[in-house]
Amino acid sequence: MFESADLRHHVSKAAYKRDETALREALLDEQFDLAAQRRFAVLILIAGVEGAGKGETINLLNEWMDPRRIHTRAFFQPTDEERERPEAWRFWRALPRKGEIGVFFGAWHTMPMVQRAMGEISEAEFAQSIGDIRRLETMLCDEGVLLLKYWFHMSKGQQKKRLKALEKDPATRWRVTEHEWTFHDMYDRFIAVTEPFLRETSTGEAPWIVVPGADPRYRALTFGRHLLAALRERLDQKPPKRLPDKTPPLLAPADTVTVLSALDLDQKLDRAVYKAELETWQGRLNALVRDPHFKAMSLVVVFEGNDSAGKGGAIRRVTGALDARSYQTVSIAAPTEEERAQPYLWRFWRHLPRRGGVVIFDRSWYGRVLVERVEGFCSEADWMRAYGEINDFEAAMVRHGTVVVKFWLAISKAEQLKRFKQREKVAFKRFKITDEDWRNRDKWGVYETAICDMVDRTSTAAAPWTLVEANDKLFARIKVLETLCGAIETAMERNGGKKGKKG
Amino acid sequence: MFESADLRHHVSKAAYKRDETALREALLDEQFDLAAQRRFAVLILIAGVEGAGKGETINLLNEWMDPRRIHTRAFFQPTDEERERPEAWRFWRALPRKGEIGVFFGAWHTMPMVQRAMGEISEAEFAQSIGDIRRLETMLCDEGVLLLKYWFHMSKGQQKKRLKALEKDPATRWRVTEHEWTFHDMYDRFIAVTEPFLRETSTGEAPWIVVPGADPRYRALTFGRHLLAALRERLDQKPPKRLPDKTPPLLAPADTVTVLSALDLDQKLDRAVYKAELETWQGRLNALVRDPHFKAMSLVVVFEGNDSAGKGGAIRRVTGALDARSYQTVSIAAPTEEERAQPYLWRFWRHLPRRGGVVIFDRSWYGRVLVERVEGFCSEADWMRAYGEINDFEAAMVRHGTVVVKFWLAISKAEQLKRFKQREKVAFKRFKITDEDWRNRDKWGVYETAICDMVDRTSTAAAPWTLVEANDKLFARIKVLETLCGAIETAMERNGGKKGKKG
Repeated sequence: MFESADLRHHVSKAAYKRDETALREALLDEQFDLAAQRRFAVLILIAGVEGAGKGETINLLNEWMDPRRIHTRAFFQPTDEERERPEAWRFWRALPRKGEIGVFFGAWHTMPMVQRAMGEISEAEFAQSIGDIRRLETMLCDEGVLLLKYWFHMSKGQQKKRLKALEKDPATRWRVTEHEWTFHDMYDRFIAVTEPFLRETSTGEAPWIVVPGADPRYRALTFGRHLLAALRERLDQKPPKRLPDKTPPLLAPADTVTVLSALDLDQKLDRAVYKAELETWQGRLNALVRDPHFKAMSLVVVFEGNDSAGKGGAIRRVTGALDARSYQTVSIAAPTEEERAQPYLWRFWRHLPRRGGVVIFDRSWYGRVLVERVEGFCSEADWMRAYGEINDFEAAMVRHGTVVVKFWLAISKAEQLKRFKQREKVAFKRFKITDEDWRNRDKWGVYETAICDMVDRTSTAAAPWTLVEANDKLFARIKVLETLCGAIETAMERNGGKKGKKG
Repeated sequence: MFESADLRHHVSKAAYKRDETALREALLDEQFDLAAQRRFAVLILIAGVEGAGKGETINLLNEWMDPRRIHTRAFFQPTDEERERPEAWRFWRALPRKGEIGVFFGAWHTMPMVQRAMGEISEAEFAQSIGDIRRLETMLCDEGVLLLKYWFHMSKGQQKKRLKALEKDPATRWRVTEHEWTFHDMYDRFIAVTEPFLRETSTGEAPWIVVPGADPRYRALTFGRHLLAALRERLDQKPPKRLPDKTPPLLAPADTVTVLSALDLDQKLDRAVYKAELETWQGRLNALVRDPHFKAMSLVVVFEGNDSAGKGGAIRRVTGALDARSYQTVSIAAPTEEERAQPYLWRFWRHLPRRGGVVIFDRSWYGRVLVERVEGFCSEADWMRAYGEINDFEAAMVRHGTVVVKFWLAISKAEQLKRFKQREKVAFKRFKITDEDWRNRDKWGVYETAICDMVDRTSTAAAPWTLVEANDKLFARIKVLETLCGAIETAMERNGGKKGKKG
């Protein structure tokens, strides 16, 4: 990766002066066009060798372009806020929106490289990280982000020369500490790790660009020109029409037996029994969330289900057991303008709870493989890749210690009709039933296929789906509460925490 | 993954009879169309649980369709031929060509799953395999292969019932051995591994399709219909026009210093010195290849270089040191019809040497990022992804114990002109110089960029590029021989074999 960058490159002062002004003007033009088109976001990763000009380049970028539309984030030690969420949360929250430029100074690539160089992770674990990074970056590119990855390089000899020069000059002496020399001593070890890393995380859509860092003028010009060319190329492209989908179809069943048809929807609970059970399970849930061990965990609950299946009622029975300060309910409707300017999963990442917190999603990221699939709001390629992206998303939560519980509340078509009619009759419930509900109902079969594919492809050991028979609201609510308690208890046991007492 | 497949599915005899004929006819039609269009190959992976109907399905497929255009390969223990090449070689050689259908019974997914279930590899190594598989399959899909992955499933209870039934019937009793029951006992352990494996190797372009296997008629219909729908969908697509490239540009240098310009091309060797050196190094090479330790290795040498840089002469000096039975020279020109019907790397995979063998490529897979890039024979996306694919290809060789040595023979533009003119003068050399050579010469600068990118992006620790200063042919030949000997010796030392004596 470093063959060209290891050479002695040089740009004279005169040549730089001559070219810089034109470059700056052109960059500003493209930035303006980017903001005007608002079609895609630009994410610039800045990484590289100590002293190869990473910081200087970021300063330059802010000098050359309109700094109000460049959002630079340096990732060092995570903050409290960040530590209490899955690792990738801090990257998601810092993503630039369409029309803007984000600059990440040290991002998801930093830790695996450092850990591998220090021998803290094995070759296989390192390879696993590389796989994860490729998946994350592929997702960003699929979502339209222009991802530009710059690696600033200098040879070991160049680095030494630079440190010596800095030390000599009283004005810069303070910049060279023991820290810098330690890094210098480990140069070879780091290069042995970073070189294959850069190669293996270089894909056609997001290759690493190695910038020779020793000569500041050379570095500035090559970097600036590359950024300019990359922006220009993408801005000049016509918005792509819908591409031919290369996704094969999923399996069509040859009978009527599905995970939904196999449910006994009419399971009932007597109201007296319900009352007693409700008290038991709400009490248990309350105790679990207040348990000291829960402070190291968090809980994400997803409610999906047929229209009028009773999601709202079930959610209220859950929140009824919780302290208002400990939970948040997030209703997912059409995305806001800000959310539309971000990759699909962004609007869910932003709501993830801190440790000790509970977030309940009333509808969720599964919209992608349900309504968006059925209504054609996204392409087939988009919802097909979503299964894997969703699994990765939930795996990131679970790895972090979040308990992820997913409910599908299922009612029969006849029961839905009854409820729709009831709602139309009762004045204060009429707002709950719209033409759209009736239209969805006409697509019952298509939705059923989408639901079954969703269950098959996203029910994981770590985050399984629970199908809730919901023709009887009382039965459904108790099953929800009981499942929730069970999931938290299992996670606590796994963490070696308190063993859940049974009923 | 198995929620739907675990249910009791059933298709009646009458329904099956009614639908099967139409399905067969439709499948035959699509197969005929596939052969007529010859636009893409179909690769079907058949995998799954013991007894869930894998073999029966393959038989059915051959019964339903024209078996002359279905090529079934079962991968169990590798043959001698296969064991002596990199692991993936046997899959490459069995790939179906465009217009045909290949069926792989157990492929690259089998070993990682078995090894993980047996605890022979760690979770991280398993994840690494998953990453490798995703890369391989992405490459196949990018190359246009319609990849269909079927997993035949049955629940543990269904499997037990089936084995008991087979045992009861004297006609099938022989099919149930201890082997089958051992597999049954390990059912849960295998499912715990395969389930996440299937999920994580399911991509938008190549998702696993889980086929419920317990009911033969249900299995046959759902599988057949899915295959039909998948074929139809792809055959009905219009050949995609060139898509908008989403690849960013590579770095343009801001000075004239490149890995090529940094070479001192005029290094010379006196003819008398050359003769002595030639004898030394040819002798050394000959001894190394006849060394008993070499029997466990193999050698792949790549010669690339400017037109008239002296590749042929250098190759003859290498082969001059070898026993004619031990090496093969492969000249890469335009691909044959058979080669055009395969993924890009196929025509190189087919020539890889057995253990103890030497293959010399006169031009190579690097054509993709050189001439094909410069002449626009492939899209930008194609040559951009080729860097990673080539690195994976060479890594597979090195992992297998192949020594990979790559030479770029570099001459100056002036030296080339001299040689071109000389060739035109000498009658028996005139065939060596064509209009195309002159046209390539006009693109000197563009080629230089491509060469430098190639060196930067594919010079790996395991398979580095050696740039050979070749204005003086004698100097170049000795450098080639010396480098070759050094590479083999280093590999032998690493393998703990004979320590190479220094000349």
